[in-house]
Amino acid sequence: MFISVIGGNQCSSEQLKLAEEVGSEIAKRNATLVCGGLGGVMQAACKGAKSEGGTTIGILPGSRSEDANPYVDIPIVTTIGETRNVIVACTGQAVIAIDGEYGTLSEIAHALRNGIPVIGLNTWTLSKTDGCESPIIPAYDAKDAVDKAISAIKGKEAK
Amino acid sequence: MFISVIGGNQCSSEQLKLAEEVGSEIAKRNATLVCGGLGGVMQAACKGAKSEGGTTIGILPGSRSEDANPYVDIPIVTTIGETRNVIVACTGQAVIAIDGEYGTLSEIAHALRNGIPVIGLNTWTLSKTDGCESPIIPAYDAKDAVDKAISAIKGKEAK
Amino acid sequence: MFISVIGGNQCSSEQLKLAEEVGSEIAKRNATLVCGGLGGVMQAACKGAKSEGGTTIGILPGSRSEDANPYVDIPIVTTIGETRNVIVACTGQAVIAIDGEYGTLSEIAHALRNGIPVIGLNTWTLSKTDGCESPIIPAYDAKDAVDKAISAIKGKEAK
Amino acid sequence: MFISVIGGNQCSSEQLKLAEEVGSEIAKRNATLVCGGLGGVMQAACKGAKSEGGTTIGILPGSRSEDANPYVDIPIVTTIGETRNVIVACTGQAVIAIDGEYGTLSEIAHALRNGIPVIGLNTWTLSKTDGCESPIIPAYDAKDAVDKAISAIKGKEAK
Repeated sequence: MFISVIGGNQCSSEQLKLAEEVGSEIAKRNATLVCGGLGGVMQAACKGAKSEGGTTIGILPGSRSEDANPYVDIPIVTTIGETRNVIVACTGQAVIAIDGEYGTLSEIAHALRNGIPVIGLNTWTLSKTDGCESPIIPAYDAKDAVDKAISAIKGKEAK
Repeated sequence: MFISVIGGNQCSSEQLKLAEEVGSEIAKRNATLVCGGLGGVMQAACKGAKSEGGTTIGILPGSRSEDANPYVDIPIVTTIGETRNVIVACTGQAVIAIDGEYGTLSEIAHALRNGIPVIGLNTWTLSKTDGCESPIIPAYDAKDAVDKAISAIKGKEAK
Repeated sequence: MFISVIGGNQCSSEQLKLAEEVGSEIAKRNATLVCGGLGGVMQAACKGAKSEGGTTIGILPGSRSEDANPYVDIPIVTTIGETRNVIVACTGQAVIAIDGEYGTLSEIAHALRNGIPVIGLNTWTLSKTDGCESPIIPAYDAKDAVDKAISAIKGKEAK
Repeated sequence: MFISVIGGNQCSSEQLKLAEEVGSEIAKRNATLVCGGLGGVMQAACKGAKSEGGTTIGILPGSRSEDANPYVDIPIVTTIGETRNVIVACTGQAVIAIDGEYGTLSEIAHALRNGIPVIGLNTWTLSKTDGCESPIIPAYDAKDAVDKAISAIKGKEAK
């Protein structure tokens, strides 16, 4: 099972703590963590996953594997810059968004476009003028987010 | 001046009419229209621009220039699929979003990430849990949208 | 008609002269020049095209239209780095390669992969161990290269 | 250590046997195999690696992880079509090219552009008109190719 964690390169210490907890919850369920491979939420989530013996994939924007944070096991070297966000979003079977700015918003959009469930922790709220509900599934803490990601993946597989 | 028009491949006849008006307003100001080159909002906007003698660029997802709608003057053949949304968003100096689904949302996100102003006509509303305002500038009709796009471009150039 | 000119960002003054001649030959036939938008062969070709009143498209690697050389009319802002070579190659109906290094080689490969004819001026020679001929059509000077590009395009259209 | 194996989706049974041997040699040295994730040379190499208990990464062109061949452990879902060749080339610390057509040629070019050593087994020969040598390191069999890939990686790390 592959779960992507997305969020900013820079964020508050609270968000970092949350990201680390999400990473360790993912590893505890034997899922593989996918992320953008750099700092902030990405590094914290990888650190959490490694603390529980998990596996981490970092999908990097640049042309150097050395840019990956030290907790990335498998650096994917894309060279396509921020456009690699599409690959981060689509490689997970579910996406957990933590806080984040416009880069995170683009990843949310790409995931939703590809039918991949998105779980949100303090992140964007989306609505259309036609009044439809936000397609992001809200979560209350790290454990809740990973529970909801896994049950969304299982729900899709059951179909 | 380059203005991108984004929106769905499929949409209502009202949205199509709006897109066509936006396209002709863009051409009237001697700006070049940039879009994703396919049907729906993209085709209607190109049709509007050509009716006023404007120039249209279609940034295509596939590997065949023949996929462009008949109102595209300059087909750019990207071969990178929906990821070409990034290029549509970033090639405009301002972006006008009409209605749209998740693909449009990803284009909005990529534009905002690159500091490109986004004008919205019946499109997504974005908010963060921290209560900041939606970064999309609302417009009331086609003329208002193009006016706001042009004044946003001039505002950036003046800095 | 769209013709791509590819070649290095840095090159000898002889190659620059050749690129400028290719650009002006393209404009004389009323074809639009497509290139990577930066310096060296790209800038010289654009300069040649503008000297004959032609139109030039620059498909840029970065996120700033200001990176385009001063002879680019239409800057396409891809943000995907050197991977934009694929788009340069596939947007032309024929490709003229002048000298060039590995970036040019990748563009030749992408063009051939998409069935786009490639004309070579002092560029790579390719062969397979199975002894098949190089798929690059050799040209002897700028005029010969553009003649061969146009007849290759017409040959494909006739099929 | 990450080694990319590149080659056609369709190839002869001899090439498949060679690819399978390359895959198992890579796994025997505890290196991770990177490939494009589909059939032909890619599938044979993954099968070889799994027969020796290795790990395999498949960098897929489409939007569905189910497109991966059954020997891929880690499917990376890029959605960017054949342009994902850039990522296959750049994620390996060395690249082994087996036979192959223009897609393989583009991967060779992208690897060389990024300073990644390329080892060739019955693949393209490249030359420039200035008479410089082909930058592809020839190998004589699967074991020789993997030996040369590993010593090229160690040579780069030693610098």
